[in-house]
Amino acid sequence: MYPQSIQKLIDLFSKFPTVGPRTANRFVFYLIKLPREKFDELLNSIIELRKTIKICPSCFNPFAENADLCPICSDNSRDKTLLCVVEKEADLESIENTKKYQGLYFILGGTINLKKDERNIRINELKEKIKQGNFQEVIIALNPTTEGEATTFYLEREVKPFGVRTSRLGRGLPVGGELEYADPDTLSSALESRK
Amino acid sequence: MYPQSIQKLIDLFSKFPTVGPRTANRFVFYLIKLPREKFDELLNSIIELRKTIKICPSCFNPFAENADLCPICSDNSRDKTLLCVVEKEADLESIENTKKYQGLYFILGGTINLKKDERNIRINELKEKIKQGNFQEVIIALNPTTEGEATTFYLEREVKPFGVRTSRLGRGLPVGGELEYADPDTLSSALESRK
Amino acid sequence: MYPQSIQKLIDLFSKFPTVGPRTANRFVFYLIKLPREKFDELLNSIIELRKTIKICPSCFNPFAENADLCPICSDNSRDKTLLCVVEKEADLESIENTKKYQGLYFILGGTINLKKDERNIRINELKEKIKQGNFQEVIIALNPTTEGEATTFYLEREVKPFGVRTSRLGRGLPVGGELEYADPDTLSSALESRK
Amino acid sequence: MYPQSIQKLIDLFSKFPTVGPRTANRFVFYLIKLPREKFDELLNSIIELRKTIKICPSCFNPFAENADLCPICSDNSRDKTLLCVVEKEADLESIENTKKYQGLYFILGGTINLKKDERNIRINELKEKIKQGNFQEVIIALNPTTEGEATTFYLEREVKPFGVRTSRLGRGLPVGGELEYADPDTLSSALESRK
Repeated sequence: MYPQSIQKLIDLFSKFPTVGPRTANRFVFYLIKLPREKFDELLNSIIELRKTIKICPSCFNPFAENADLCPICSDNSRDKTLLCVVEKEADLESIENTKKYQGLYFILGGTINLKKDERNIRINELKEKIKQGNFQEVIIALNPTTEGEATTFYLEREVKPFGVRTSRLGRGLPVGGELEYADPDTLSSALESRK
Repeated sequence: MYPQSIQKLIDLFSKFPTVGPRTANRFVFYLIKLPREKFDELLNSIIELRKTIKICPSCFNPFAENADLCPICSDNSRDKTLLCVVEKEADLESIENTKKYQGLYFILGGTINLKKDERNIRINELKEKIKQGNFQEVIIALNPTTEGEATTFYLEREVKPFGVRTSRLGRGLPVGGELEYADPDTLSSALESRK
Repeated sequence: MYPQSIQKLIDLFSKFPTVGPRTANRFVFYLIKLPREKFDELLNSIIELRKTIKICPSCFNPFAENADLCPICSDNSRDKTLLCVVEKEADLESIENTKKYQGLYFILGGTINLKKDERNIRINELKEKIKQGNFQEVIIALNPTTEGEATTFYLEREVKPFGVRTSRLGRGLPVGGELEYADPDTLSSALESRK
Repeated sequence: MYPQSIQKLIDLFSKFPTVGPRTANRFVFYLIKLPREKFDELLNSIIELRKTIKICPSCFNPFAENADLCPICSDNSRDKTLLCVVEKEADLESIENTKKYQGLYFILGGTINLKKDERNIRINELKEKIKQGNFQEVIIALNPTTEGEATTFYLEREVKPFGVRTSRLGRGLPVGGELEYADPDTLSSALESRK
């Protein structure tokens, strides 16, 4: 039986993504053994994070600059007729890292959860953004998983009334993939998009 | 120490693809314990395989029919202007399973091994087939791995003098893939081939 | 669709331990591509295995010697008052490899399958062996898994009427194990058998 | 490129045990999206942890009670002639969970790192504790890994001059283990400690 302040923090760390009780346990003992100045550095960074980070009201990406919009939404050189809808922040980063996309983004904040039939995604904010904007294409860049697919269908239906063209990411073999283990859909797409 | 006839067969099974000594060991004791009629069924199937299976001289796919060419090469309804080069039999099966490809095939029999600089692939047979044929496109359908890529470059160079267009399978996110973990090349291709 | 002689052998290889359809598939193409002399070597080794290997009527270990009993049962220097009951041949080999055991063996041929309530183990042969023998201790050396435990309880009950002492392997931390992940039973045993 | 306050915290979380940059990334966005009251609960728990947790000067286990020693060291019903040396806090918890040990503990704080030849373990504190105490047995309960073994040898040598008997945890098959995959040392110990 651990002391209550240890157990409490184990419980809170257990809610972090990918973390189970055993790892949460290790986190707490890591903190206990951290030298005072390292501990304070971590504590101050957590406080600083909450103080400095704002959420962009236009795309919902977090940013720290002293401005109303995030650097991407504020950047006049970006193509304002192209909108890329992603599930989460890390997906936006992945697409930025390709250096091939120059349009705007919108972070949906999740996918439709089929089991619970919850729609805790920013669908109203997305519609508002499309209504206000001047988009010619909305790229729905969600994961090609069951939930991503379901959400893509849903978004296509919701975006349609605005008269804006929607598109999806192309499917195919990823770097390192193998034909032998590819599913027929992936392979069909790879054949069709050959070049 | 196992008896010699057991050890000998463990050694031979260890050369099977994906099989190590411990699994080979289990195979041998599986055989020893197999009832006589099951054992004979397996033995006869192995002998039968060797007797009935021929290798198609045109595409190198194994087949059992009493004919000179395999069913795909003999099928007059298939598009004889399209050639798909694959590494191995299972890759051909994967593409057939998509039901989206109606051209011919060629089984290369391997990839260029970068380390040993061996080229134990059917490059001369491929050139001969292209020379004899009437192809308008050669789809180089190798795995997007380092060795597959190197072999693709090599084949493109070798096919070029014949004046036939070459193509590669499209890259993109596979079913079940995630943007967050996709490499930039895969994601760039997925963006470009969006639809 | 593969030719029938290929599909038949894929099905038979799929019944090998640890082998699924995809691996069975690779085995068959490995055989098809095997040079004639290598193929014949394998075929002859399989036939030879069946011809030369006998099952020892006393311990059920396979052996090849021209004798009535296997080398271990025939070895007069071994301790005939000690019997070690194992599940399968590979377990006997593991114990022989420790070079610490000088008694006799008995291969049970399986464990009690809790779900199907089948008892396809050599319980009658074991009782007969104990009745005929002069054992002072029967070591029940089954895996400390649920099925191994259930079978151990069963054997202890069946052996009891013969008035022979039974024992089980000691539990503890294996080489490379970690206290943090050890279950309480294992750790209790490790504490009790400390030295 | 993330804002600096995000990147800084990603770097700090990456130093947590088992955490790489990608998981650290997810932790930070988890924090950003946490509702204010949940965020404050976490922050306060971290501060509370540092305020309430002391390290027992006798066994080096963290504790929260308002006392000089931890509950185990303060417990008069525990056997003060028995000392169990463990590497870390979680190992102590594992042994407590067996409910079979009634002696005292000592947390060594690590193992000897063979590569760097550093000895950042509490060896002087251990010697001092043994000198001051009245122990009849020191159980060296380190992991049976290479580093744990090396540290065990080292501790045995260092404890010897105090005239106290040392012991190690017994080896054997763990719950769920298999004879076929057990190393000869583990199996030899399991045979010897049979019962």
